[in-house]
Amino acid sequence: MDSSDLFLQIKIKRSFLCVGLDTDYRKIPEYLRTGPDAVFEFNKQIIEATAPYTVAYKLNTAFYEAMGVTGWVNMKKTVEYIRQNYADMFIIADAKRGDIGNTSELYAHAFFKQMNTDAITVNPYMGEDSVAPFLKYPGKWAIILAATSNEGSADFQRMEDRYSGLKLFERIIEYSKNWGNTDNTMYVVGATRAELLKDIRNSIPKHFLLIPGVGAQGGNLREVCKNGMNDMCGLLVNSSRAILYADNTERFAEVAGQKAEAMQKEMYELLQQHYLM
Amino acid sequence: MDSSDLFLQIKIKRSFLCVGLDTDYRKIPEYLRTGPDAVFEFNKQIIEATAPYTVAYKLNTAFYEAMGVTGWVNMKKTVEYIRQNYADMFIIADAKRGDIGNTSELYAHAFFKQMNTDAITVNPYMGEDSVAPFLKYPGKWAIILAATSNEGSADFQRMEDRYSGLKLFERIIEYSKNWGNTDNTMYVVGATRAELLKDIRNSIPKHFLLIPGVGAQGGNLREVCKNGMNDMCGLLVNSSRAILYADNTERFAEVAGQKAEAMQKEMYELLQQHYLM
Repeated sequence: MDSSDLFLQIKIKRSFLCVGLDTDYRKIPEYLRTGPDAVFEFNKQIIEATAPYTVAYKLNTAFYEAMGVTGWVNMKKTVEYIRQNYADMFIIADAKRGDIGNTSELYAHAFFKQMNTDAITVNPYMGEDSVAPFLKYPGKWAIILAATSNEGSADFQRMEDRYSGLKLFERIIEYSKNWGNTDNTMYVVGATRAELLKDIRNSIPKHFLLIPGVGAQGGNLREVCKNGMNDMCGLLVNSSRAILYADNTERFAEVAGQKAEAMQKEMYELLQQHYLM
Repeated sequence: MDSSDLFLQIKIKRSFLCVGLDTDYRKIPEYLRTGPDAVFEFNKQIIEATAPYTVAYKLNTAFYEAMGVTGWVNMKKTVEYIRQNYADMFIIADAKRGDIGNTSELYAHAFFKQMNTDAITVNPYMGEDSVAPFLKYPGKWAIILAATSNEGSADFQRMEDRYSGLKLFERIIEYSKNWGNTDNTMYVVGATRAELLKDIRNSIPKHFLLIPGVGAQGGNLREVCKNGMNDMCGLLVNSSRAILYADNTERFAEVAGQKAEAMQKEMYELLQQHYLM
């Protein structure tokens, strides 16, 4: 899937929502916690209810690894289920991997071949050879961590380069934007950092951005769009907890669908305001 | 296991070797590639042959994830095998994880509880709250990436702070050395960066360092010890490929054992030269 395909899906769905399947076994409705496939069963119902309103699903690997081997089985089954039933959906492994070149190659294989996701989030700390192997798979994407949404993002990401004056995350963007292209590279920019989006857009006007932190983490969708939207939308806005755990009864999927639909409606308005529909 | 326990093992074994179980299915002897447990069977023989000469094993998760669910099963079986047969061995998950706080908590659970390793390598790019959850488990360790051994380590890790003049990896060490203590925090410093070890030792005289890159990646053990050893040794030196794939026949384990023994002998000499034995 390239950036045009993604923009087409955004126009069809009138949405740039990404639903984060950060499925915590302890938080799913109690009546579902019955067997080793509980997380998959929960995901399946969430996906069925939210698919009309979303263009992407993002699976954070931590939630699955915390359940050990069972978790990996549930993660794989979830990706397969999306592939089989929603062929145009963009699937992200939020894995934040990155290692020396020959090792990153194995991570690329793990997620692009074994797990069959379209994209993986990548931690750029180890530099170009740690990211390059993710850019060798046609139609697949590396989503590079730039400015994250957490408190600790202030510790190192905003350190200023003595020579260029660039902040670390800006330098990461400047360097890495030419490692791949706008059809295989995105950046993570936390919605709690909406004020940074204008500068980032100056540096990378065409790249897609993955925006976590709208909702539970306090980011504002309207601000994000004002500063970050481009002529192909250029945004995937993720929501996890606000959709997944909106209701804790047998109605959880229905309510999750309603929450996703509400976000889709807001996104449709914003797409219209930016003359993209 | 705290730093005194680790030093005791180093004195007992006369070695500060860590064997990296970066087991690539494509590189194990062909006669072993027979079933889903092939990687575990290979690891078991490598462990039996090298255990007398090593104080630690390091499993790089990429090699296991590349095999999907089967890989996770093999990784877990390998850790269990070491636990059951070599109770004093220090086991590292070389996973390079790190995410927002509540997500890093799940990674900590995944590796310290589910996988039951003693330590996990952590990528510090997302700051304090991404590392802190790994420091909450008594007896468990976070091994923070500082200066890695690959070419890309030059891209961002050596960027200089406009205000303090510190390089990024130095600032990471300066900040993070007080997040935990010398009994739960180590740092990764590539052996190809031996010249940096002196400065790093000034900043953290007491912390253990995990040193990859001796052997296949070209680092020099004697240089590493000259600049990096402290009065509790303070070093775990990793070797992976040079031991694992030294021989490709039925004798692979025997030859791996010989390679490990040769490194142990060299390490014993160096420990004596530094008056630690």
